[in-house]
Amino acid sequence: MKARCLLIVVGLLLLALGGCAPPAEQTGPPQAGPAAPADPLPSWNQGAAKQAILDFVKGATTPGGAGFVPEPERVAVFDNDGTLWVEKPAYIQFLFAFDRVRAMAADHPEWASRQPFKGIVENDPKVLGSLGEKEIAQVLAATHAGITAAEFEKAVREWFATARHPRFDRPYTELTYLPQVELLAYLRANGFQTFIVSGGGVDFMRVITEQAYGIPPEQVVGTAGLCKFEMREGVPVLVKLPQVFFVDDKEGKPVGIHQFIGRRPILAFGNSDGDLQMLQYTTIGRSPSLGLLVRHDDAEREWSYDRESHIGRLDEALDEAPERGWVVVGMKGDWKKVFAFEP
Amino acid sequence: MKARCLLIVVGLLLLALGGCAPPAEQTGPPQAGPAAPADPLPSWNQGAAKQAILDFVKGATTPGGAGFVPEPERVAVFDNDGTLWVEKPAYIQFLFAFDRVRAMAADHPEWASRQPFKGIVENDPKVLGSLGEKEIAQVLAATHAGITAAEFEKAVREWFATARHPRFDRPYTELTYLPQVELLAYLRANGFQTFIVSGGGVDFMRVITEQAYGIPPEQVVGTAGLCKFEMREGVPVLVKLPQVFFVDDKEGKPVGIHQFIGRRPILAFGNSDGDLQMLQYTTIGRSPSLGLLVRHDDAEREWSYDRESHIGRLDEALDEAPERGWVVVGMKGDWKKVFAFEP
Repeated sequence: MKARCLLIVVGLLLLALGGCAPPAEQTGPPQAGPAAPADPLPSWNQGAAKQAILDFVKGATTPGGAGFVPEPERVAVFDNDGTLWVEKPAYIQFLFAFDRVRAMAADHPEWASRQPFKGIVENDPKVLGSLGEKEIAQVLAATHAGITAAEFEKAVREWFATARHPRFDRPYTELTYLPQVELLAYLRANGFQTFIVSGGGVDFMRVITEQAYGIPPEQVVGTAGLCKFEMREGVPVLVKLPQVFFVDDKEGKPVGIHQFIGRRPILAFGNSDGDLQMLQYTTIGRSPSLGLLVRHDDAEREWSYDRESHIGRLDEALDEAPERGWVVVGMKGDWKKVFAFEP
Repeated sequence: MKARCLLIVVGLLLLALGGCAPPAEQTGPPQAGPAAPADPLPSWNQGAAKQAILDFVKGATTPGGAGFVPEPERVAVFDNDGTLWVEKPAYIQFLFAFDRVRAMAADHPEWASRQPFKGIVENDPKVLGSLGEKEIAQVLAATHAGITAAEFEKAVREWFATARHPRFDRPYTELTYLPQVELLAYLRANGFQTFIVSGGGVDFMRVITEQAYGIPPEQVVGTAGLCKFEMREGVPVLVKLPQVFFVDDKEGKPVGIHQFIGRRPILAFGNSDGDLQMLQYTTIGRSPSLGLLVRHDDAEREWSYDRESHIGRLDEALDEAPERGWVVVGMKGDWKKVFAFEP
């Protein structure tokens, strides 16, 4: 409550100071008439978070200004699960893996008596609710390896074409956050490159990031398994192996940014402690820079969770946000709409 | 000689058939008058290789044509050493590593009695000429790890500012092949993304690829060591470790393309057997596609080597080129100029 009031006070102050500071691109409601520029972030409510974004972009793109950043260095990195689309009741990739276990079960009679596969096939809530890291690794190895990259891509594509989210009963590609899709487009329109840097599997994400976010495969960094090149009857294939190549989470995120992108970003957007090091790497000792965190505080339109959540825990990063100047974006207050399908 | 004659015959045939086929962008010498389009590849001699490139790009960019490729899929991958710049008398990165051993020797008294370091410090041709994989790995670990990524970048940048090539007595960034720099720019002007996919160290290459080729860091794939994220007195750093993360050579090249780019290219340009699998992955069963190989056959302007060379061996890939339809680019015949500094 207190933080909310502070935001309002800051917002009013910014409005009051409008006359002294250079005018931001959008400080009030859109005005009538052909001269009023369209709001680039129509699904964001006016407030400190939206204003911080608009100000940062204006600064980065204003030649000669203190905040100017040459276009090639305008690299923005976004976490995916919980930052760009929903991550409840489980990571969408895990829901895909569970469906794939069910689809593959006929070819694996041994699974009928082996956990966690038995429980997944039977949709046993007790098993699904108690999957640990070891079980998840088993399921991912069984469903994500031993096939070619092209076969895997086809399986993912087919799954997205028919699978529906259990709560919203819609295709998963509609479970992206509309304000974030707008933000990505706004950044690109201002010369930013927008990368995904996610703990999710890169081969899984790359199938739909272009359609979902306008982000092409080559701008997606994620967790990856090893793969190997083979000529099979004269045809080159890449075979996905069950061993891990790279884990793009926590300390792995700045490492992934270095290894796969090779530039330090100036903007990072996350939603959990898995993004803490990415925000540190992006913002500490680096000016201009902008760190942002989505806070899931909207049980009605989406979910409400932070410090105690098993998935998407936001605890340390939330504590660190004030001293770092990271912007905490409250879903409830800062987003006019969460999903495009809302009335 | 026979191959040369065949090229000429094919070239004449192409010219003779010019009336039936759609006219290529450049089939003859540039004509006078304001209407003549500028030759996009002025350092390439007219011939089958240049024509194959011009035809491929024209096809890929002609909407409705059989060879059309949507812009996002126009991914071109280039090897670096021996394809975009010189790799003799040794890979430029190794020459950097040797200089770095010499610069670091004062802090490593133990090297005075330890090979290969002793021989490198003393510039002993017997030691330098007999370095095996094990010794090279030792030298790279000693010179490329144990420092932060930022410190390493600084060391590489400083080295490039002063180091000179032993034969040409010029900065290494002038040892790029002018026809290839033109080709990269021509491809980008036609909506291609140009990536480097090299066995060289990615942290080394990324320092100069923008300046040397107009290729930004995020479009460079290469061999990489592990690195780890640390907060040092409140400052985020990436520390380079001596362990290998990824080897981007031979079978590793298509793997690297998949892991770091996530799209199958339509054009691949290499010069050695280290590029064989990259060319296979790019061209086999994929239409349209174009595979190319630089052949070092110009001892006067550069070097002449192929099947017997220790560095940049071109043997298997040369044998496979005719059946695959890969274009073999002879430095001597196909390139009007090799280096920009030539008179």
